Amino acid sequence: MFLQQKFCSVCGSSVELKYTEGRDRYVCIECSTIHYTNPKIVVGALAVWEDKVLLCKRAIEPRYGFWNLPAGYLEDHERSEEGAIRETMEEAGAEIEIERVLTVYNLPQANQVYIHFLAKLKSGIINNGEESLESRLFTEEEIPWKEMAFTSSTFALRRYFEDRKKGVIETHLGTFPDK
Amino acid sequence: MFLQQKFCSVCGSSVELKYTEGRDRYVCIECSTIHYTNPKIVVGALAVWEDKVLLCKRAIEPRYGFWNLPAGYLEDHERSEEGAIRETMEEAGAEIEIERVLTVYNLPQANQVYIHFLAKLKSGIINNGEESLESRLFTEEEIPWKEMAFTSSTFALRRYFEDRKKGVIETHLGTFPDK
Repeated sequence: MFLQQKFCSVCGSSVELKYTEGRDRYVCIECSTIHYTNPKIVVGALAVWEDKVLLCKRAIEPRYGFWNLPAGYLEDHERSEEGAIRETMEEAGAEIEIERVLTVYNLPQANQVYIHFLAKLKSGIINNGEESLESRLFTEEEIPWKEMAFTSSTFALRRYFEDRKKGVIETHLGTFPDK
Repeated sequence: MFLQQKFCSVCGSSVELKYTEGRDRYVCIECSTIHYTNPKIVVGALAVWEDKVLLCKRAIEPRYGFWNLPAGYLEDHERSEEGAIRETMEEAGAEIEIERVLTVYNLPQANQVYIHFLAKLKSGIINNGEESLESRLFTEEEIPWKEMAFTSSTFALRRYFEDRKKGVIETHLGTFPDK
């Protein structure tokens, strides 16, 4: 996931770690280009159909065979909610309508920030995308909590079901591991 | 802002654009490393003191001399709200306490997603950081709407003042330009 940074992508010369603008960054020893790196955005959807939510069983590593909300890296020049719509189509063959931002969830060790949207499934028809072994709708009681792939999904699901009982859906900020 | 991608940062060989995983990506012709690129996260704060909000006058390009909410790129392995706290300290010498996610704002052309947090200033004392010509507290009536640097800040401020009148602060999703 973290690529080695040995050469300058602009001129092909070597780079060195150098204290620049407040922290160590890779800087080209020839053309002085600063190679900034930043956290990546992962976007996903908690998609609802009647009283059920959509989960996908991962067909790829890491966490092959575990359940997850459909989610993936935001692509260049993509809107965040557009990425969540695309990922839900890729992983579950399902069309969704975005309702709101549900969670912003930091994974500083993985250098990621998740944005999960609450969404409506446009129909109860779902398929298995290439990256899923299976897609299925679950009631709260049916959720396989011990077989969830990532805490980002567990966090979003927990907050959603709590809010639904209160009758008010909120946006939640979280971090793994908890500070 | 968008670096040229000509050489592989891992092995120093040339890269070529190649249709990979659903879109054109730079792939090394020697070691086959895929060089993924993704949107960057910009984090900022709408920091409140009594009935006033904090704005900083930019001392750097782009939009030198225009007003903005304190904001900047999220750094590697940083939590999103931690980045907003850091930027507010750097730009206005001010300590804040994060209250909630206020906006998620897509700038697909600039390949950025902004996350603005609503925050409380811990005191009314502010300074000018290195990246600001001036930092100042404004009531709603005093906001220099025509001298704002970026629509991301205008969006956050408009939504905040609307919500404050309603008595309920929400999280808002936006995009520039509007679709």
